[in-house]
Amino acid sequence: MQIPTLVSTHDAALAARLDARINDKTKPQGSLGALERLARQIGLIQATDRPTLRRPAIVVCAGDHGVTAEGVSAYPQSVTWQMVENFLAGGAAINVFARQNECALTIVDVGVNHDFGVRTGLLDRKIAHGTANFCHGPAMTAVQCEAAIQAGLQWAASVDADVLGFGEMGIGNTTAAAALMAALTGMAVEDCIGAGTGLDQQGMARKADAITRALRLHAQGSTPLAPLEQLAALGGLEIAFMVGAMLGAAKRRLVLLIDGFIVTSALLVAAALQPAVLDYCVFSHCSDEAGHGRMLQYLQARPLMQLDLRLGEGTGAALALPLLRAAVNFLEQMATFSSASVSVKHG
Amino acid sequence: MQIPTLVSTHDAALAARLDARINDKTKPQGSLGALERLARQIGLIQATDRPTLRRPAIVVCAGDHGVTAEGVSAYPQSVTWQMVENFLAGGAAINVFARQNECALTIVDVGVNHDFGVRTGLLDRKIAHGTANFCHGPAMTAVQCEAAIQAGLQWAASVDADVLGFGEMGIGNTTAAAALMAALTGMAVEDCIGAGTGLDQQGMARKADAITRALRLHAQGSTPLAPLEQLAALGGLEIAFMVGAMLGAAKRRLVLLIDGFIVTSALLVAAALQPAVLDYCVFSHCSDEAGHGRMLQYLQARPLMQLDLRLGEGTGAALALPLLRAAVNFLEQMATFSSASVSVKHG
Repeated sequence: MQIPTLVSTHDAALAARLDARINDKTKPQGSLGALERLARQIGLIQATDRPTLRRPAIVVCAGDHGVTAEGVSAYPQSVTWQMVENFLAGGAAINVFARQNECALTIVDVGVNHDFGVRTGLLDRKIAHGTANFCHGPAMTAVQCEAAIQAGLQWAASVDADVLGFGEMGIGNTTAAAALMAALTGMAVEDCIGAGTGLDQQGMARKADAITRALRLHAQGSTPLAPLEQLAALGGLEIAFMVGAMLGAAKRRLVLLIDGFIVTSALLVAAALQPAVLDYCVFSHCSDEAGHGRMLQYLQARPLMQLDLRLGEGTGAALALPLLRAAVNFLEQMATFSSASVSVKHG
Repeated sequence: MQIPTLVSTHDAALAARLDARINDKTKPQGSLGALERLARQIGLIQATDRPTLRRPAIVVCAGDHGVTAEGVSAYPQSVTWQMVENFLAGGAAINVFARQNECALTIVDVGVNHDFGVRTGLLDRKIAHGTANFCHGPAMTAVQCEAAIQAGLQWAASVDADVLGFGEMGIGNTTAAAALMAALTGMAVEDCIGAGTGLDQQGMARKADAITRALRLHAQGSTPLAPLEQLAALGGLEIAFMVGAMLGAAKRRLVLLIDGFIVTSALLVAAALQPAVLDYCVFSHCSDEAGHGRMLQYLQARPLMQLDLRLGEGTGAALALPLLRAAVNFLEQMATFSSASVSVKHG
């Protein structure tokens, strides 16, 4: 499979030009904090000192997970397709927040265990009716995993957007994400798991046990698996699609807007393949799912918000969009000290 | 002076109705975190289980400070009126963020040391050409302080808004705010001050010294001053206007959107007079000004965002508006489990 080679956005001369523009605005230097860092980053991604964000889009990737057979979710698997129907009808949280923020929304079926037929507003990229239970074998075959990545790469190659937010739906996918996190970061399983959609203590114990057994099953002696092998063994079809879409979108120098725990697990894989992908990522929020904060630390990421969200669907990404717009807008629209005849700092 | 009596928004029956509506939405219970708390609070403020936010407004209150003579700001006093001109021309950060978020903006001259004449877009409520230097006497006379509060009360009585954000401009006003904080909370001066618009270590020492001298000058033996006496002795004209506007707006059951350090210092005074005002407050962000986090803790406030802002002008309030809209929108627009035929949680 052809994985795109990504280059860093680093450009000292452009960064200096961006800093000069930012510091000339009528405000104390640095006083817009995270928004100044965002303006600089978006400028570097777009390779211009006059960045714009005019075509925001969010993709919600859906897939089912065989590991639900282990009792790792508070909701039945059927909720995945029911929520896809809810997305198509416009009634889910992501619909509300995308509408509010004038953001295009794409729903992709990468592996839902349900036949939707041809449906307006649903992109059919179904690879399989869900993954296999990773406690008994690999979640995906190498062929399935590669097909899902390719589907993401191809979709991202033509999406009409300058900022692309990622979201997901898949009952059981916090378990897949936690398993990937443990495998890719080496952290203890207990530090990777959380309550997902609302597990009790016994459910959490089943989740930890399922992941521990899977890590043992898929370990090959002392040789660690390659990232794509980890993804096939433990991941999900919607996660693999996101890995491809992230790499494809970064190749086109789009801004990648990262949501919560599952989206960030896809980024762990993408970054293991192409570390430069991180230059293109804006981290919208730190979720309430216990492992997410540690995942962000591992990636040395500074999330914009911490709102105790744990819903997924790309909701955090949609909610962060106004901050990205604010970063670009202050750089474009604010007066400078000289244009506004405002006195500069003493001494 | 007639201070309005505020009642708590507490209403157990309404809170239960709001919780039932929130929990019936197609999402795991609690998974929208801070937005769920916001939806509940706004419903309680508006005394309805179907809250709306259609007329956001921000008021930027400007005033000058005699204490600048002590060398407590990195910028000259003239920057206050120059920035008011910048607001009127639409070139400041608050103009950019208010436009982006479709929020009405009112600029009030409560005490700028400059004659603007009659100007479109500038509300003239000037009480004086700035405060006196509080190191040598009270910042305001009791009459001036009361007049500024009354102006705020009267303005809030008729403002066309359902959510009212507060912002300010006034070179030297982090010093006044820190002095008020020390006086009203009893915290050490060192825990109340920060770098403001960008003070160096020597400037910080001058600031701490000025506040320490003022606290000593205005202390009346062992009897603590009443809140309004503290405000007159140490505060600012724009701060007094905000105290009045907060009380007046809460009386009309508007949502008060609190910005950074100086706005929160006005709220310290308002809450000392009428503690129920806090029920009406949404705290937009924790700023980078060192004392703000402690001030919020003292008020037991949970800010929505932490973006390292330290600009004032109401910029944090404007940036938080989309989150308030998201809270109201999810409550109004999301499908319920039954309407969307989504299965509920196991067991």
